[in-house]
Amino acid sequence: MNNAKRLVSEGLGSALLLAVVVGSGIMAERLAAGNAAIALLANSIVTGAGLIALILMFGAISGAHFNPVVTLSAAWQKTMSWTDVLPYIVVQIAGAFAGVAIAHGMFDEPLFFASAHVRTGWAQWWSESVASFGLIAVIISTSRTRPGVTPFAVAAYITAAYWFTSSTSFANPAVTLARAASDTFAGIRPADVPGFIIAQLCGAALATGLFSWLYRAPAVKNTEPVAD
Amino acid sequence: MNNAKRLVSEGLGSALLLAVVVGSGIMAERLAAGNAAIALLANSIVTGAGLIALILMFGAISGAHFNPVVTLSAAWQKTMSWTDVLPYIVVQIAGAFAGVAIAHGMFDEPLFFASAHVRTGWAQWWSESVASFGLIAVIISTSRTRPGVTPFAVAAYITAAYWFTSSTSFANPAVTLARAASDTFAGIRPADVPGFIIAQLCGAALATGLFSWLYRAPAVKNTEPVAD
Amino acid sequence: MNNAKRLVSEGLGSALLLAVVVGSGIMAERLAAGNAAIALLANSIVTGAGLIALILMFGAISGAHFNPVVTLSAAWQKTMSWTDVLPYIVVQIAGAFAGVAIAHGMFDEPLFFASAHVRTGWAQWWSESVASFGLIAVIISTSRTRPGVTPFAVAAYITAAYWFTSSTSFANPAVTLARAASDTFAGIRPADVPGFIIAQLCGAALATGLFSWLYRAPAVKNTEPVAD
Amino acid sequence: MNNAKRLVSEGLGSALLLAVVVGSGIMAERLAAGNAAIALLANSIVTGAGLIALILMFGAISGAHFNPVVTLSAAWQKTMSWTDVLPYIVVQIAGAFAGVAIAHGMFDEPLFFASAHVRTGWAQWWSESVASFGLIAVIISTSRTRPGVTPFAVAAYITAAYWFTSSTSFANPAVTLARAASDTFAGIRPADVPGFIIAQLCGAALATGLFSWLYRAPAVKNTEPVAD
Repeated sequence: MNNAKRLVSEGLGSALLLAVVVGSGIMAERLAAGNAAIALLANSIVTGAGLIALILMFGAISGAHFNPVVTLSAAWQKTMSWTDVLPYIVVQIAGAFAGVAIAHGMFDEPLFFASAHVRTGWAQWWSESVASFGLIAVIISTSRTRPGVTPFAVAAYITAAYWFTSSTSFANPAVTLARAASDTFAGIRPADVPGFIIAQLCGAALATGLFSWLYRAPAVKNTEPVAD
Repeated sequence: MNNAKRLVSEGLGSALLLAVVVGSGIMAERLAAGNAAIALLANSIVTGAGLIALILMFGAISGAHFNPVVTLSAAWQKTMSWTDVLPYIVVQIAGAFAGVAIAHGMFDEPLFFASAHVRTGWAQWWSESVASFGLIAVIISTSRTRPGVTPFAVAAYITAAYWFTSSTSFANPAVTLARAASDTFAGIRPADVPGFIIAQLCGAALATGLFSWLYRAPAVKNTEPVAD
Repeated sequence: MNNAKRLVSEGLGSALLLAVVVGSGIMAERLAAGNAAIALLANSIVTGAGLIALILMFGAISGAHFNPVVTLSAAWQKTMSWTDVLPYIVVQIAGAFAGVAIAHGMFDEPLFFASAHVRTGWAQWWSESVASFGLIAVIISTSRTRPGVTPFAVAAYITAAYWFTSSTSFANPAVTLARAASDTFAGIRPADVPGFIIAQLCGAALATGLFSWLYRAPAVKNTEPVAD
Repeated sequence: MNNAKRLVSEGLGSALLLAVVVGSGIMAERLAAGNAAIALLANSIVTGAGLIALILMFGAISGAHFNPVVTLSAAWQKTMSWTDVLPYIVVQIAGAFAGVAIAHGMFDEPLFFASAHVRTGWAQWWSESVASFGLIAVIISTSRTRPGVTPFAVAAYITAAYWFTSSTSFANPAVTLARAASDTFAGIRPADVPGFIIAQLCGAALATGLFSWLYRAPAVKNTEPVAD
């Protein structure tokens, strides 16, 4: 697979992921009229459904990371080259911001506007660590044992994680940055972004270490890209 | 596969698709008593579930397009003959109208009655472009890499797209035309139909071009019908 | 597979199916406190999820019909012997009533009590015909082309059919009879049962004829039991 | 697979399972503001989605039991050694309590606090028997016929069982013990734990006997571990 296609895939996939997350959040907030449980239920089911489609759409080209911690974890596991890491992360972040603008355009909002949604404190940082730990865990374990189910396992995991963490599980630094530019249901105050990203890196690092031991690659055959 | 079976399959499938979309919309509106979030949640989950069943039901016979832009995109990709395009589109539209009548009959409504539901403006046209872009993207990418998952990927995508677009993602000219004949939850004012269809064609054309490049068929083997 | 196991499988599966349908209906009605849309959303998702489990549980033994019209359709297609039809239907009906009692026991209700829920009229009979047509259609088409997905396709179909028909899609004579013995969310007035069953037989017969033509078995290999 | 990895897998998996169940319960209760139907709908969908991820995550290492009755049933079927049973159960219970603490930490609650949620009486014990019977039934049948679908079948079953039983289907002694330490949506009064566990053991034993007969292993080949 050539490099241009891989970067287009990561960028476009990240954009569509943010369009799904932010767009469905706006729709949910508008329709639910204050009923936060219905809004989150819709937002979580839709994000899971969107992830199934997006991972299947782009997995065969770029691995469908859409997420800097997934890319870093893959490089650490030697399933991708370290020289690809920076370009991947750059297009993931650029794509994520583009996706926020795409969603805002669909709902007649300004292209970008800083979020005022406070998300901070130990409970939420602990939540982000747990959420990212689980995300990397499900990616490593399924891609080493049954790669065909990875898109479904990741989607199911994220749908659940929106509910079982108090932070609603961002678990993705590119997503976190871009959601700071959306003062809607899915937003996060820019000042709260660093805490989330540090927590995500900690959880992801721990999972990469632990699951690399649990599923130690027995042979060369298992060092394939994350996607099936 | 002979031609009569393919046309029956496209027509009947389009009819059942509209019965699902319009029927579940009526049921949702009646039961939800003004709670639009619950109504859309039900409508979107049901449409996704119905699509899984319908694409699996008819995919092996006709490819289960049920959608003129899918048919046009397939012809453009040379996965079906251009001479089949017009008959496909004719039965899709005829089937879609029949499906609206089937749904109305199940809920004791007039067979057809023009919708008064206003759906217009740049935000909605942009939404329809994005929605159709994504639909064609998911069909091309999965049918060229993992055709067995196409029905599930398309269904998941549409469930998500009902929420992340402000137009609730028609993404289908035959469906758009037929929904103009239903003054219910799923309806669209006849005057607003052309804007939607133009937007759908633009999004679908862009996706066909881009994803044909991303997933360039390496050999004859990949020029099979869309369905698995 | 010996006969005793097949009949235990059909009877126990039908019992668990009714436990799922009736039990979740009672729970939904109690918790939803008059919000009928939430109650039906839960009931339809739960019935679909339960069907996935039950068809996978019993499919390999008896085909997991749990439904007299499915059994009659299978015999008509010669995928099972006509001499097995009556025993199948008897245990399906007996199992269905047992399942109602199991559910009532779980919710501290009388074992049986006649429903007062009126379900009659042309719109509902038309709904039952459409629902049964679609159910047989999805079973024939998937079991002749991709039998491994049949449990998922049937479950998705039924989840959708609860919403797109005005009758909430019984589509099963054994289920209809047994639900007459439950004066709860899922009930049907005994006097309304015959209309439903006649409509179900009509829809199922039409689908068996049409889909046997669409998917004409090209060879002996396709005349296997419905389950995968 | 070495023993340390299997025990880490069972312990960590049980911890994450409880984090999902208890965490999503807290979130649901906080957001739903008294609407118990929405809270249970979210809790049941999230638990099912979480189970898909967790069983796929750990199945290849330890079988992903996370449940003493599943472990006992596996030993009875001779698909695992009796000497492994006690260590499995110990880490399942320890992991379950750790998971409750993980969830409480994410939502700023005390690490442990005894539940005051009364769950007792014949209807609930009968519910727990039925729920555990079905759980063991779905595990035995799918793991002997289509082990690749077991994670999906179990998840679908549990989503359904939350609704069709009046006890909301604990069906797991380790989960029951740990939920006694959480005075939240998912809690159970410590005094009510023994009744639930006895009912779970009865249902599971009956299912193990019946389904071992239904799916009698025809040869050595079928005596593999539960996971695929």
